[in-house]
Amino acid sequence: IATKFPTMGTTIFTVMSALATERNAVNLGQGFPDFECDPKLTEAVTEAMRKGLNQYPPMTGITPLREAVAAKIEAVYGRRYDPVSEITITAGATQAIITAVLAIVKPGDEVIVLEPCYDSYVPNIELAGGKVVRVPLVPHSFRPDFAKIAAALTPRTRAILINSPHNPSGTVWTREEMLQLQDLLAPTDVFVISDEVYEHMVFDGQPHQSAARFPGLAARSIIVSSFGKTYHVTGWKVGYVAAPAPLSAEFRKVHQFNVFTVNTPMQFGLAAYMASPEPYLQLPAFYQRKRDLFRAGLANSRLKLLPSEGTYFQCVDIAEVSDLSEAEFCKWLTTEIGVAAIPLSAFYGDGFDQRVVRFCFAKKDETLRAALERLAKL
Amino acid sequence: IATKFPTMGTTIFTVMSALATERNAVNLGQGFPDFECDPKLTEAVTEAMRKGLNQYPPMTGITPLREAVAAKIEAVYGRRYDPVSEITITAGATQAIITAVLAIVKPGDEVIVLEPCYDSYVPNIELAGGKVVRVPLVPHSFRPDFAKIAAALTPRTRAILINSPHNPSGTVWTREEMLQLQDLLAPTDVFVISDEVYEHMVFDGQPHQSAARFPGLAARSIIVSSFGKTYHVTGWKVGYVAAPAPLSAEFRKVHQFNVFTVNTPMQFGLAAYMASPEPYLQLPAFYQRKRDLFRAGLANSRLKLLPSEGTYFQCVDIAEVSDLSEAEFCKWLTTEIGVAAIPLSAFYGDGFDQRVVRFCFAKKDETLRAALERLAKL
Ligand SMILES: CSCCC(=O)C(=O)O
Ligand SMILES: CSCCC(=O)C(=O)O
Repeated sequence: IATKFPTMGTTIFTVMSALATERNAVNLGQGFPDFECDPKLTEAVTEAMRKGLNQYPPMTGITPLREAVAAKIEAVYGRRYDPVSEITITAGATQAIITAVLAIVKPGDEVIVLEPCYDSYVPNIELAGGKVVRVPLVPHSFRPDFAKIAAALTPRTRAILINSPHNPSGTVWTREEMLQLQDLLAPTDVFVISDEVYEHMVFDGQPHQSAARFPGLAARSIIVSSFGKTYHVTGWKVGYVAAPAPLSAEFRKVHQFNVFTVNTPMQFGLAAYMASPEPYLQLPAFYQRKRDLFRAGLANSRLKLLPSEGTYFQCVDIAEVSDLSEAEFCKWLTTEIGVAAIPLSAFYGDGFDQRVVRFCFAKKDETLRAALERLAKL
Repeated sequence: IATKFPTMGTTIFTVMSALATERNAVNLGQGFPDFECDPKLTEAVTEAMRKGLNQYPPMTGITPLREAVAAKIEAVYGRRYDPVSEITITAGATQAIITAVLAIVKPGDEVIVLEPCYDSYVPNIELAGGKVVRVPLVPHSFRPDFAKIAAALTPRTRAILINSPHNPSGTVWTREEMLQLQDLLAPTDVFVISDEVYEHMVFDGQPHQSAARFPGLAARSIIVSSFGKTYHVTGWKVGYVAAPAPLSAEFRKVHQFNVFTVNTPMQFGLAAYMASPEPYLQLPAFYQRKRDLFRAGLANSRLKLLPSEGTYFQCVDIAEVSDLSEAEFCKWLTTEIGVAAIPLSAFYGDGFDQRVVRFCFAKKDETLRAALERLAKL
């Protein structure tokens, strides 16, 4: 058949998870926990199903969940979003991002992405007929380079996609960096799609600098987050979008004709569970301990540790260990050492190889120890 | 803000459901059951959650659910789809359709829709940059007019969207009609997106003529169906796509960057529940009884009943009852009589008004009786 996307491959996460399963490797590739969520959360879903809450919810999501999200954002970031007109529940963050892109990007519009970036961004922009403008983060440090971003802005720039805490690098934008972005965009009408799915995983006592905290950014931002990441249920595929009413209205025009709406009992379960802020308040300490356990295990290895300020990822420099490309190294590591990782080159359009690979530490301690034992062979 | 879709409104189902709630009307508008699903199904989901099946499933869906779908299609329609390469689980049928459209429609391609049609089709095609070619079904009878379809085919026709059992009319394509479509498309390379979400609701002993039954159609078709409709859980938002491997591969390229994947515990629950064919085998009789109850109640009214061969919809001609437009009549009926219905004009691009409105009879008998009591006032 005459294919529309002849060059679109299979996402790296699927490829590496399949290889990990095939080789019985410890899977530190695809980002998901291998431990269980709080049984109170699943019980709340069961209760919703028992109550017969199994039919279409409102298109924008159930009211109590939108209210819980608005309350959380206000408590944490100090900005009030109207749950009726400014919060929309999505079928995960990936669906939120494609919907945002389809809603605002016209054919020919330029959209800036900061590489390395999550592998759905670029295909999403291409599907909308937009022109992808790739701006690299500083290699190895993965900090934004505002001179480069400024140089990429043109009158045709429609939007910029940002992501902090950052997947794959684990960096977290500082307040100063967010202010710099706010200043840079002030004279423009560029929209921001702010992927904040790791918002509750920021370490070392630092706060997450959500776009919601910065009025000049919030006014132009579609903020995307994920319940799956925050509550250890990546397979539930529920996320949300917070955006000013006019932007939310545009988002919903597409959302209603993409998924229309999102799983009802899961929404009720999450709404009930969110009555307490404890779970997300405990998250930084919970994941910081895992990060530290994993880093301690690699401290004496020849895999050089990069900073991990947030997310559930730890990047390492492999230069001292191997001459293989990142991608070949990850395959070799999975098949020969028995630990799956993700090459950072998969997050660059041109496959840029800076000798860095990503491990996911959102795993049981015993899983991390098993991986460390195998990695000790390097 | 400079909007991308200035004219895109809110889906009629949301509008009418909101009005029904506001006016405390019996909601026979939006298509969803007001009764509960089989508790065995929700228990199967609970069990999956208890087993810790809450993380990302494979991108294409969990193996047992894809196998259950393939087995069902083979048992019912006699065509074998490979569960590995030809079945994909989706976040409902709406998401399946937009994904199919985005996967195959290039900017400038023509896509034929048969009006009246479900209100997401046209925006989906426009989002893909395609050109919508509207071909009317025969007014009032809602049968396909093959001379008109033939006349609409051009060398730029990329796909045709068909839907049987048909929403909103309740007609079901005959074997002869499917054969006519097959013959018409034989010399072309036009794809078929076949929306069959009401496949298990065909009445009066007739079989559903799935595109899967017709080799010449199946080879070019992306068949879309819905677990929500079949198992009385419209709010779960789980559907599937069956298509030959090369078409499925194209579908999945977009699917992975739209929702990526679909709720894990719901998938496991559905897979376990599908071990028995009983639920879908009983469905025609179950809904036929409701259709007959509703029709009997309207038999002596001035609302003229049209045929309902399948789906959960009953259309009526309002000409003898009112001079209002269909849309105004539905608003009036909701607010003054207390029964919500859907105007067929909402399913036409130009708002064509043939004095027909749609009722949903997928309701408890007592709900239908309450609606009939109110409708008796007409
Ligand atoms: C959607 S699968 C990928 C999960 C993830 O966010 C990651 O591994 O980066
Ligand atoms: C997605 S809401 C509409 C439900 C439905 O299929 C209908 O009422 O036609």
